[in-house]
Amino acid sequence: MNKSRLEAFSDGVFAIVITLLILNVRIPETDYEHLYQGLINLIPSLLSYVLSFFVIGLYWVFHHNSFQHVHKIDRSFVWMNMVLLLFISFMPFPTYLMGKYPFKEIPVIIYGFNLLAANLTGARMTFYIYKRKNLSADSYTAAVFKSQVIMYIVINLLYIIAIGIAFYNPQISYGIFVVVLILLILTTKSTKHRV
Amino acid sequence: MNKSRLEAFSDGVFAIVITLLILNVRIPETDYEHLYQGLINLIPSLLSYVLSFFVIGLYWVFHHNSFQHVHKIDRSFVWMNMVLLLFISFMPFPTYLMGKYPFKEIPVIIYGFNLLAANLTGARMTFYIYKRKNLSADSYTAAVFKSQVIMYIVINLLYIIAIGIAFYNPQISYGIFVVVLILLILTTKSTKHRV
Amino acid sequence: MNKSRLEAFSDGVFAIVITLLILNVRIPETDYEHLYQGLINLIPSLLSYVLSFFVIGLYWVFHHNSFQHVHKIDRSFVWMNMVLLLFISFMPFPTYLMGKYPFKEIPVIIYGFNLLAANLTGARMTFYIYKRKNLSADSYTAAVFKSQVIMYIVINLLYIIAIGIAFYNPQISYGIFVVVLILLILTTKSTKHRV
Amino acid sequence: MNKSRLEAFSDGVFAIVITLLILNVRIPETDYEHLYQGLINLIPSLLSYVLSFFVIGLYWVFHHNSFQHVHKIDRSFVWMNMVLLLFISFMPFPTYLMGKYPFKEIPVIIYGFNLLAANLTGARMTFYIYKRKNLSADSYTAAVFKSQVIMYIVINLLYIIAIGIAFYNPQISYGIFVVVLILLILTTKSTKHRV
Repeated sequence: MNKSRLEAFSDGVFAIVITLLILNVRIPETDYEHLYQGLINLIPSLLSYVLSFFVIGLYWVFHHNSFQHVHKIDRSFVWMNMVLLLFISFMPFPTYLMGKYPFKEIPVIIYGFNLLAANLTGARMTFYIYKRKNLSADSYTAAVFKSQVIMYIVINLLYIIAIGIAFYNPQISYGIFVVVLILLILTTKSTKHRV
Repeated sequence: MNKSRLEAFSDGVFAIVITLLILNVRIPETDYEHLYQGLINLIPSLLSYVLSFFVIGLYWVFHHNSFQHVHKIDRSFVWMNMVLLLFISFMPFPTYLMGKYPFKEIPVIIYGFNLLAANLTGARMTFYIYKRKNLSADSYTAAVFKSQVIMYIVINLLYIIAIGIAFYNPQISYGIFVVVLILLILTTKSTKHRV
Repeated sequence: MNKSRLEAFSDGVFAIVITLLILNVRIPETDYEHLYQGLINLIPSLLSYVLSFFVIGLYWVFHHNSFQHVHKIDRSFVWMNMVLLLFISFMPFPTYLMGKYPFKEIPVIIYGFNLLAANLTGARMTFYIYKRKNLSADSYTAAVFKSQVIMYIVINLLYIIAIGIAFYNPQISYGIFVVVLILLILTTKSTKHRV
Repeated sequence: MNKSRLEAFSDGVFAIVITLLILNVRIPETDYEHLYQGLINLIPSLLSYVLSFFVIGLYWVFHHNSFQHVHKIDRSFVWMNMVLLLFISFMPFPTYLMGKYPFKEIPVIIYGFNLLAANLTGARMTFYIYKRKNLSADSYTAAVFKSQVIMYIVINLLYIIAIGIAFYNPQISYGIFVVVLILLILTTKSTKHRV
């Protein structure tokens, strides 16, 4: 298995998931008089659509960045990547739930576990490559790895907190998802600027 | 992040959105006797399908042309591009509304704002690249930039007019969308012929 | 616009349409006792699914073969290709109709016109390239062009006959679609063997 | 037809099918009080989703591995590959049935025949390439071919057994599908390690 073909396949899955999301924003079957109210009721669906759009976009950017430190791949890595794609392509499911049952605990918990599962798989892939010098690129230094580990720990802790809080106050969990997303987008940007 | 990978990812999203559009042209659940009438009733949906097909096709051509003036990309640009893809992949939503509620103001207004948002994001990207000499290609001259700015101003003014008119006469707004589309297709063609 | 990027974009649309077709084979909402009968009733949908799958596959092969005679492209060609993709990505619509109203005239007529429209666009593109020596590859000889023209005339005549017959006996039209498909698959194969 | 373009097209179909699967996990239309029960009822759909995700992923890995022994392709091979893609892109259909009617015989039998058909097509392609020295790569030795034949025989026998058992006890058939999947993932991995 060739690294660039795995990247192309993964890119395809990312592009498809991110574009399919809109199919789950279901326009209500009403006459025109009630369309305005129907669209107002769709706002939670639209917001969770936008959230997931950028979350998947962020995973795509992460995926690309991580692969820059990969020199070669083996079968185990291919299957870990498949598990990651499973969690990515699952995203439309909790996204739809969050839109349909806004600010309820079950959708938020499923959403949180989905993000957590994707992150843990990503972390597992990171460890796997770092520990095998024949697979990792020279650019994959201990400093890079350490910064990734810290990032994974912080994000996953925040997601676990979001899941825990969801049992009491799902709104706060929403807020955590959004804040983590924005922080990550800004952080990856500033990392770039530093380089 | 590599420029060609961002292009490939964007191409994927464009190709998927343009192909998904047909899924929203929903065939009525009738017996065969009423199929003919049902298909007649679908004509507005088919027309808005064709309109959006070429609008997205045009954005794809524009995206490609703009990227020819891009030498390198950075993270900010990646995220602006993600915002652009958000508005592109949102297109099936107002397209479906325009087909379901033909010549009504709400769908036309949403459609117009969607186009406007995509255009403004595209204009923002254009400015971003032009202002950074390390990111722009040598081919990105002041003359090219100026012609782009004029085009963006004219199109966006027309879209704003279309949105404003929609409150009084949505049919005219439709007409503006179609005329802008045809003008842009012909203009980009004649630009080519000039070169 | 680069030839290979147009090919990649077109390939994406072909791959998506061919894969989306299955979404329109809608499993009936019944309890398990009536599932067997429900699946029997789905056979027309499955057959038209298989027909369209290979029809789109054939267009993809044709598209690829035609592009081998293309040296360079211009904007007009890009937009003709967009029109072709419109008709290709429209295929799920008549495919679904043919499955839902088996052996009825309206679906068959729409299906036939869709194929005809795609073919005429393809023929138009072929002429366009052949007439412009700066766009066509050296391999595009008069003999190749003549054989293409004959093929287009024969196929389109058969489709027109199929559409005409559909008003009296849609089953025969089905047969023509299938026979043309098989002949084309076999012919393109034997062409290859000759070379 | 170029080998790498056929691979890219096939990759596109694999990526789309694997991502579309989630659209068939249909969230029940209930109020929030019954959502928990509704999600519990969805577990069979989710399990068959995960099963098919990895089955398609495995076919993708197989497809890639097989193509490494292909030096050149001809039209017949293109069409065999199209038949393979037909069976791959058909997967959402039996997957949905298995989720909707869990542990019933009809869905399991259709699923089994789908896998069998895909495998037999894959085996046919393997034979086709091996028998034509002008198409096969030098790496395609008799030993590689023999190990593939044994694998195809074993898997297909197991699928036939699964189909047969489904008439009496569909649960066991499920188990066979899962065990074959896991064995293949592990085997392809150890094959790699041997190399």
